[in-house]
Amino acid sequence: TSSGVFLLQMGWGDLGAFGEPSKETPNLDQMAAEGMLFLDFYTASPLCSPSRAALLTGRLPVRNGFYTTNGHARNAYTPQDIVGGIPDSELLLPELLKKAGYTNKIIGKWHLGHRPQFHPLRHGFDEWFGSPNCHFGPYDSTERPNIPVYRDWDMAGRYYEDFKIDLKTGEANLTQLYLQEALDFISKQQASQQPFFLYWAIDATHAPVYASKQFLGTSQRGLYGDAVREIDDSVGKILKHLQQLGISENTFVFFTSDNGAALISAPKQGGSNGPFLCGKQTTFEGGMREPAIAWWPGHIPAGGVSHQLGSVMDLFSTSLSLAGLQPPSDRQIDGIDLLPVILQGKLIDRPIFYYRGNELMAVRAGLYKAHYWTWSNSWEEHSKGIDFCPGQSVAGVTTHTQEEHTYLPLLFHLGRDPGEKYPLSFASEEYQQAVEHISGLVQQHRATLVPGQPQLNVCDQAVMNWAPPGCEKLGKCLKAPESDPKKCSWPH
Amino acid sequence: TSSGVFLLQMGWGDLGAFGEPSKETPNLDQMAAEGMLFLDFYTASPLCSPSRAALLTGRLPVRNGFYTTNGHARNAYTPQDIVGGIPDSELLLPELLKKAGYTNKIIGKWHLGHRPQFHPLRHGFDEWFGSPNCHFGPYDSTERPNIPVYRDWDMAGRYYEDFKIDLKTGEANLTQLYLQEALDFISKQQASQQPFFLYWAIDATHAPVYASKQFLGTSQRGLYGDAVREIDDSVGKILKHLQQLGISENTFVFFTSDNGAALISAPKQGGSNGPFLCGKQTTFEGGMREPAIAWWPGHIPAGGVSHQLGSVMDLFSTSLSLAGLQPPSDRQIDGIDLLPVILQGKLIDRPIFYYRGNELMAVRAGLYKAHYWTWSNSWEEHSKGIDFCPGQSVAGVTTHTQEEHTYLPLLFHLGRDPGEKYPLSFASEEYQQAVEHISGLVQQHRATLVPGQPQLNVCDQAVMNWAPPGCEKLGKCLKAPESDPKKCSWPH
Repeated sequence: TSSGVFLLQMGWGDLGAFGEPSKETPNLDQMAAEGMLFLDFYTASPLCSPSRAALLTGRLPVRNGFYTTNGHARNAYTPQDIVGGIPDSELLLPELLKKAGYTNKIIGKWHLGHRPQFHPLRHGFDEWFGSPNCHFGPYDSTERPNIPVYRDWDMAGRYYEDFKIDLKTGEANLTQLYLQEALDFISKQQASQQPFFLYWAIDATHAPVYASKQFLGTSQRGLYGDAVREIDDSVGKILKHLQQLGISENTFVFFTSDNGAALISAPKQGGSNGPFLCGKQTTFEGGMREPAIAWWPGHIPAGGVSHQLGSVMDLFSTSLSLAGLQPPSDRQIDGIDLLPVILQGKLIDRPIFYYRGNELMAVRAGLYKAHYWTWSNSWEEHSKGIDFCPGQSVAGVTTHTQEEHTYLPLLFHLGRDPGEKYPLSFASEEYQQAVEHISGLVQQHRATLVPGQPQLNVCDQAVMNWAPPGCEKLGKCLKAPESDPKKCSWPH
Repeated sequence: TSSGVFLLQMGWGDLGAFGEPSKETPNLDQMAAEGMLFLDFYTASPLCSPSRAALLTGRLPVRNGFYTTNGHARNAYTPQDIVGGIPDSELLLPELLKKAGYTNKIIGKWHLGHRPQFHPLRHGFDEWFGSPNCHFGPYDSTERPNIPVYRDWDMAGRYYEDFKIDLKTGEANLTQLYLQEALDFISKQQASQQPFFLYWAIDATHAPVYASKQFLGTSQRGLYGDAVREIDDSVGKILKHLQQLGISENTFVFFTSDNGAALISAPKQGGSNGPFLCGKQTTFEGGMREPAIAWWPGHIPAGGVSHQLGSVMDLFSTSLSLAGLQPPSDRQIDGIDLLPVILQGKLIDRPIFYYRGNELMAVRAGLYKAHYWTWSNSWEEHSKGIDFCPGQSVAGVTTHTQEEHTYLPLLFHLGRDPGEKYPLSFASEEYQQAVEHISGLVQQHRATLVPGQPQLNVCDQAVMNWAPPGCEKLGKCLKAPESDPKKCSWPH
């Protein structure tokens, strides 16, 4: 059975099936109607890089090294001056799937390090079309190079130069390129009758948001909605392609997101987290609860709904299971195999850990969520207009100072209060019982935790994408400045 | 064609189909899947009585008299000391439907005045099982009588006395009684082959919230969720009953709500408005945008979605149209006939007016909403813990003082910003054009507006439900105090 993973930056509330009031995602809604909707599905970090590292390793970022120790509970990712990346010691899903004869392709944003040793083709992927970093820019090539787009080992050009993004109009045809890559890859694999793993991780809903001309202005929601509509259309075309090739019953497909909608960029460049609190960069539900749909015609009963507490890390274990492989036994794997949930409707008891960096901020068990630390962002940043929770303010919860609650966690019941607005009374029996249970889980978790070497501490202008492999063929090599490694600055 | 209207107090975000994360409304979701979902449907007031008066008259509360002039933009309804009620001069939907041979029944809360001249059987209904006021209580029968439950002309008992509500456990079997009433009425009408209008306006999700024993503790959402589940189950049973009797294709059914979820009572006694701002009692989207589903098998294509700006007042005009009747031509009717929308997918251009009392607070045209006044509630009330927008705070928008914006309305684009968090720049061309358009609509509206005699200004302890008709047969008559009419106090 082949696997496909759609990984987008969308919020829980961005899909019609999850209550977005414009209801402009007919293909994703159809995917949900034909498959199974996960309502309690989480990413592993409120930021992109650590979540992606967790998805591909099945392990929490604190284990695989995708975190920073610079400051407390800081949000870190892989900008192009990052020195670190995915350690060789980590075993990635595509590396393992190779043993079962899979061909693995990543389309879109890799984000696990852009230096040569971190190249996705060194970590199990056979093909790549996309970029190592976010499509920020344009840059002037002296202070900072534009982000390269790779085809397999070599760069094929750069964003803004060879792969146009018009920031004024919001026009870029990248999603169409990425769609075509997916369709072609699937056709090729079907012809060769080889199982495959396709990781479609395009970034059209990440700021700066863009859409193709044919989608511009078609959404009630503005440019962000245009991008969502194009992605929705693309997902529909990919699923239809699988059906037309007659391989949909042999292909397990999962749609989810690497972090909550970036409310910091809303409403023009950021989406909706529905009824949840705050967004990307936070460990409130809006930052880490994700839309999630499993689709596998002929196997998953149509219209299913699951309240299983799920995680992007489960896609690691589930994909291995589909390939008839065992997860590695020499290390802690945080993902679980969701097949019993998906195929037999089981519910597996497991907690969700909400980390920022290496700080355990909160834990969910059942319907209870305990916050050990609260922090949105600093007063200093907030006063500059950077707001992770625009229009939302819950006293003592969406704090702008780092508030420790280790000895008396803030407790919420996410069934009665999905918006995390009403902390339970410390004096209640309900509080006592739930916190006692969760504290036990935390103790157990901490006792066996071996943090990985932190990868997101050091930045250096010299390591930027000055001269990616293949640049010489394109005449696109730039001269790197002298190395000057520094502690990265993570102001958020 | 018969008509059925389900009118509940639920929020836009309380149904699975509208993104409630517990997804516990399988029957309403099924109703939506078989019918048409309205995503931009509004009530006529952020409070119950005025909305209900609007539904049954097809006219804004400011026209039919269901408002107060006591103070500015105050929220008024019909507690049992209210002197006013539905004026005889108003023509109610059931009065008109009688001309087409309909039998009309109201089950649940009437709320258009409880004094004899306002009795629903004097205003077109043939049958009634329910109460004239909210089920607040219990009262001690000296300061205040318990609310009566009527069967047709006479009282059948009182809440808490003969119709038990256990506030400690939340148990009451009232929804089951109201369900059985509906099933029996439909069976009787089917047997007699008479068209009917059934107005099922039960109040289980209004505080104090209750549910039957079999539903208690069954929801992830607590008691409120238990009540929602029981209502969902009841709606499912009523629709199934229509199908089993073979009359579903001759019965137009509509589900909606009379105001947004009462966040003032959340999370234990109030629901969810999904991504919208604030709740009941306000003219933000959370106060007036409602879940809405039209169902008519064999006529409405399954899985339809409409962005028609709709209103509860449209149920008046639509029901008349279904009966082959014309709306009265001697008065202004605000409702429109939705059949072209429902059956032919048309979109009819019309504004939505958001009133509090007789103050026009805001207007929506297309995707733009202009606020002429903003006010959640007073600082004084807010400081007592009464909060219409818990956890939400948008500077300059969710104001606690009455802010006039008549000359420079606050403008929101509800497609890009359904949560009303980002007012458009006054200097933008988009602002200029939209406000000019909306100002024209307001001018037109005001020019022809003839306010009705305000019904919600005067309160008097003597008019309370001391001795409702039929009390003597039950030995339940109480002695009224002397008349002492006063201006009602509307602190919210």
